[in-house]
Amino acid sequence: METTEPEANVTRIMLAVNESSIKGYPHASISSRGAFEWTIQKIVRSNTSGFKLLFLHVQAPHEDGFEDMDSIYAFPEDFKTMKHRDQTRGLHLLEYFVTRCHEIGVACEAWVKEGDPKEVICRQAKRMRPDLLVVGNRGLGPFQR
Amino acid sequence: METTEPEANVTRIMLAVNESSIKGYPHASISSRGAFEWTIQKIVRSNTSGFKLLFLHVQAPHEDGFEDMDSIYAFPEDFKTMKHRDQTRGLHLLEYFVTRCHEIGVACEAWVKEGDPKEVICRQAKRMRPDLLVVGNRGLGPFQR
Repeated sequence: METTEPEANVTRIMLAVNESSIKGYPHASISSRGAFEWTIQKIVRSNTSGFKLLFLHVQAPHEDGFEDMDSIYAFPEDFKTMKHRDQTRGLHLLEYFVTRCHEIGVACEAWVKEGDPKEVICRQAKRMRPDLLVVGNRGLGPFQR
Repeated sequence: METTEPEANVTRIMLAVNESSIKGYPHASISSRGAFEWTIQKIVRSNTSGFKLLFLHVQAPHEDGFEDMDSIYAFPEDFKTMKHRDQTRGLHLLEYFVTRCHEIGVACEAWVKEGDPKEVICRQAKRMRPDLLVVGNRGLGPFQR
């Protein structure tokens, strides 16, 4: 019996997703894809109208490009450009999951936030109060402390 | 589209359940009931044929009746009787969940094991390899260390 259910009655699952460490176009990490596929195959299954996925991508400030430097010097304008580029990367990453959800027919929402991933995920989980929080099998991924 | 699915394809959810601390007939703890109702309402939803619940009740050795004693002395026969009584209590506890599953129409299996709940739950989760492990919102309940 699959009917369209009122928003208040769907099961809301938050997925924290991050980027693959491969440089270039922002691909979803293997653990993020794994967490997504697990959620679809094992939880949502055929009941696509009963669930809503909430994707959260947290970007550690300046997480890419400067890993090997102890300190950097740049003009304020450089940071603006970088921040804009980071946000664009985040949106491209989320685009992958949002597209997959549209293909599958399951409702979703997606956010990019900046900060320490562990803290931001906890804060957003408290704010959004999903029924279930799913992270990749590497925990919080390469950011985990 | 709900059809009967082959066993290999169902989502297997392990629920660790324990007794209420109320004396008398072995009632399921509030957190165990909560975990069960959450699983049915938020995960299984209307897709009862897509899931199988695996109930695990772990009894800490001699967990009830002797909490306030520093040491006890008893004949070996007393221990046998006590162990038998413990197992019976465990089965009555599981009966509640198994009956609920039958009412709802979701497949289930149930076990009573003895030992340290935390260790036994981890060991059984590794052995059974469920897709999801659900414990009550008090973690491992009053046994948690």
